[in-house]
Amino acid sequence: MEFSAQQIADMLQGIVEGDPNITVNNLSKIDDGKPGTLSFLANPQYTSHIYETPASIVIVAKDFKAEKEIKATLIRVDDAYGAFAQLLEAYNSAQFQDTGIDAHALVHDSAEIGEDVYIGPGTQISAGVKIGKGSKIYANCVVGANSVIGENCLIHSGVHLYRESILGNEVSLHSGVIIGADGFGFAPKGAEYAKVPQIGNVILEDGVEVGANSTIDRATLGSTIIRKGVKLDNLIQIGHNVEIGENTVIAAQTGIAGSTKIGANCMIGGQVGIIGHLKIGDRVKIAAKTGVGNSWPDDTILQGNPGFQVFYFKKSYVYFRKLPKIISDLQKSIKA
Amino acid sequence: MEFSAQQIADMLQGIVEGDPNITVNNLSKIDDGKPGTLSFLANPQYTSHIYETPASIVIVAKDFKAEKEIKATLIRVDDAYGAFAQLLEAYNSAQFQDTGIDAHALVHDSAEIGEDVYIGPGTQISAGVKIGKGSKIYANCVVGANSVIGENCLIHSGVHLYRESILGNEVSLHSGVIIGADGFGFAPKGAEYAKVPQIGNVILEDGVEVGANSTIDRATLGSTIIRKGVKLDNLIQIGHNVEIGENTVIAAQTGIAGSTKIGANCMIGGQVGIIGHLKIGDRVKIAAKTGVGNSWPDDTILQGNPGFQVFYFKKSYVYFRKLPKIISDLQKSIKA
Amino acid sequence: MEFSAQQIADMLQGIVEGDPNITVNNLSKIDDGKPGTLSFLANPQYTSHIYETPASIVIVAKDFKAEKEIKATLIRVDDAYGAFAQLLEAYNSAQFQDTGIDAHALVHDSAEIGEDVYIGPGTQISAGVKIGKGSKIYANCVVGANSVIGENCLIHSGVHLYRESILGNEVSLHSGVIIGADGFGFAPKGAEYAKVPQIGNVILEDGVEVGANSTIDRATLGSTIIRKGVKLDNLIQIGHNVEIGENTVIAAQTGIAGSTKIGANCMIGGQVGIIGHLKIGDRVKIAAKTGVGNSWPDDTILQGNPGFQVFYFKKSYVYFRKLPKIISDLQKSIKA
Repeated sequence: MEFSAQQIADMLQGIVEGDPNITVNNLSKIDDGKPGTLSFLANPQYTSHIYETPASIVIVAKDFKAEKEIKATLIRVDDAYGAFAQLLEAYNSAQFQDTGIDAHALVHDSAEIGEDVYIGPGTQISAGVKIGKGSKIYANCVVGANSVIGENCLIHSGVHLYRESILGNEVSLHSGVIIGADGFGFAPKGAEYAKVPQIGNVILEDGVEVGANSTIDRATLGSTIIRKGVKLDNLIQIGHNVEIGENTVIAAQTGIAGSTKIGANCMIGGQVGIIGHLKIGDRVKIAAKTGVGNSWPDDTILQGNPGFQVFYFKKSYVYFRKLPKIISDLQKSIKA
Repeated sequence: MEFSAQQIADMLQGIVEGDPNITVNNLSKIDDGKPGTLSFLANPQYTSHIYETPASIVIVAKDFKAEKEIKATLIRVDDAYGAFAQLLEAYNSAQFQDTGIDAHALVHDSAEIGEDVYIGPGTQISAGVKIGKGSKIYANCVVGANSVIGENCLIHSGVHLYRESILGNEVSLHSGVIIGADGFGFAPKGAEYAKVPQIGNVILEDGVEVGANSTIDRATLGSTIIRKGVKLDNLIQIGHNVEIGENTVIAAQTGIAGSTKIGANCMIGGQVGIIGHLKIGDRVKIAAKTGVGNSWPDDTILQGNPGFQVFYFKKSYVYFRKLPKIISDLQKSIKA
Repeated sequence: MEFSAQQIADMLQGIVEGDPNITVNNLSKIDDGKPGTLSFLANPQYTSHIYETPASIVIVAKDFKAEKEIKATLIRVDDAYGAFAQLLEAYNSAQFQDTGIDAHALVHDSAEIGEDVYIGPGTQISAGVKIGKGSKIYANCVVGANSVIGENCLIHSGVHLYRESILGNEVSLHSGVIIGADGFGFAPKGAEYAKVPQIGNVILEDGVEVGANSTIDRATLGSTIIRKGVKLDNLIQIGHNVEIGENTVIAAQTGIAGSTKIGANCMIGGQVGIIGHLKIGDRVKIAAKTGVGNSWPDDTILQGNPGFQVFYFKKSYVYFRKLPKIISDLQKSIKA
């Protein structure tokens, strides 16, 4: 896809300054521009780059005043960042326009497939599955029996949904995501362990996004539930019967053990570990690498392992770093 | 599958109290019951739920005395939890009854496939592979050359076994598990690194279960060995030449570096890291997020990073949390 | 493949002592030898094993003097370890000799495929992809549109490259690796989050190796770049727009957040977490499980969470372990 400066200016209701016929086929950052790309200048700190960028077109504010010659063609708009974000969005949504069932997909006769659905090659849709209109399931996925996928979901290649998984609308799953594998439940039986059957399922509500290679286990009984708008990064582990509240955001490699409930609008850093059977309130913030061993009320901010209020953790850690000197000073004071 | 209260009572040698013809097609928890499901009451703390549950059938103890009206049909048995567990088990084992080689599987002519084996679509069975009777390998797996899979194994979709992997009987591998990728071995060669060829393999003994997206690397030479009955959760990393003793249980996102030996009947929490070339004894317990930097004898309990005996860690951590006050008090005492 | 002692001696320019016709078909460690395998003795600490090993052939130094009878056939060479490494290498490179496009691969008409390329069954090569000569892509992979793969790359089964991924020559990707999934970018929008489109890509330069189930996210704009010779272990997370310098080595389960730049020749342990937008210098060493919250100059050695110079961390940690006693001693001294 190539667009000329004039075409883009028309789309953004902007004014071309330079060659209206120059074309671009990609977007770039102003400090990392390349010929054939379109960039933007919004942050004044980056102004110096506009005089040197090899980008072919740069979007700038209507009132931007150049202090030197600029090689790039400019498009002047009211809001340079907003205009660029609009193009980003348009570029991105143009990526996933496939529809139809690929000749190399395997769709069970009993599955119900909505309009404008795409099912890629090597993907298996099992018995009793329902897929809502506009959803895309790319290559080499497996959708287990009786799973339900809502409308306009985007499931990248190599995703595995175990049986009876339930997805709302506009759910995005990245490659390698595993939904509904067995929870980790074993009961001691002498020196050995007997498996506790895991017969619940996983529910992902509307707008949930799950990053590459993350795993969300099915419930022992009932459901593991990820509420509306939750965003999970890559390589995250969600245990059986966990519930995560609306719009909570969790960074990569965090793990949440079985039956813990996380509130809404929490922000949880990377590599956090939360043990099982806890209740974490709403709007809780947890620093990266924190180990959470207790339940905490709304609006707590946590750090450390085991974690406690960040204000106190940071104070203690300042002392920890200086411990040899602090102790030595105390010993000297006592002797003096 | 639907069952009536009478059919279930006959199966459990119980007595129906209510409608013997009411049917259920799923199981539920007493505090999360739904119409059309069967639940149970074993823990007295949950007794209040039995008067309100919309579950259609509830299994209760023979001597349970209702204090109010109950809408659900009851089935009275000797041991309510045991009876429910029996149904869970029956329900679960009904899930994986597929047999035969799917028309879209690729099985090398030289592979030996036992009776009642299932091989799913898109799964590749390479040259020289042997698969014992009753094992199920679901869709889009790859079983590398000369691998051996025992009897009654359950390999979920999207599992990759590199060449020469050896599985005992009743091994379960969840989706995304990678067995036998190269160990992480590189020798410095000037400023660069030269790869150390990894030509060993992986052995998983009888009854091992491995969670979704976990990785177990092949040995440099010899074998990485996971002994009988070991249970590994999701997203776990096992390095080359590691050996894990019988019935050890490891929670999610833990990593064990190359050539470390873990004893039998250990319990290792989530996000634990154990460095290479250590020897950890039997029945060792390691708290979640612990970093293990030394070998430890049988029956040790560890926490911290680097980890040490949990009794001492907890004491030190109490002081850490109060450090600013403790130091300030000491300074005041000295001045006084 | 079977080789006789004489054939191996000829290959290594060594001298047979024992049965020149005895054959082996695998390699083993001297302390874990098996009949039919070839082993070596280089480290004097292992000398006692040579008198007992059931290995059929052992490579030893020219000047090795046996003190007892040895059952194994010996091959005497100048450098026993070097000779063995040479055999390892030969054994290993014999593993991946497949060429051609499997009948069950799906290759888009517009893809350009070099000489001696192998594409396995169930693998999808999308529109506009270029694959250089000698590269092998095993079963059930997906190579997204317009991706470029250099020469002599080795891509194991079940790898997913999103669109526009760029690989240099001799890149190795293990099973389950995900290259180019969306970076974790969401902008607050009231109580909810709006996705920031991720339209950059991932570049892996020559000689990069990535371990099983690791994930490397595409840039928001521009490229996430892994420089020449970088080695990544399993289950590693690399965020959007990260750059990792040449020959840096990173152990398993480490995560690097968005836009951080890591220098060349760093050594980063397992389960390390590095927050976003930092600059880490060259030759920095980071102990396993460290949390890096600041930028650090060349040649720093870090430990702790948050991490600081290892020399000071270790001193502080010695005090932490003894805190209860240290404080109690101070209190006694004050009272005295």
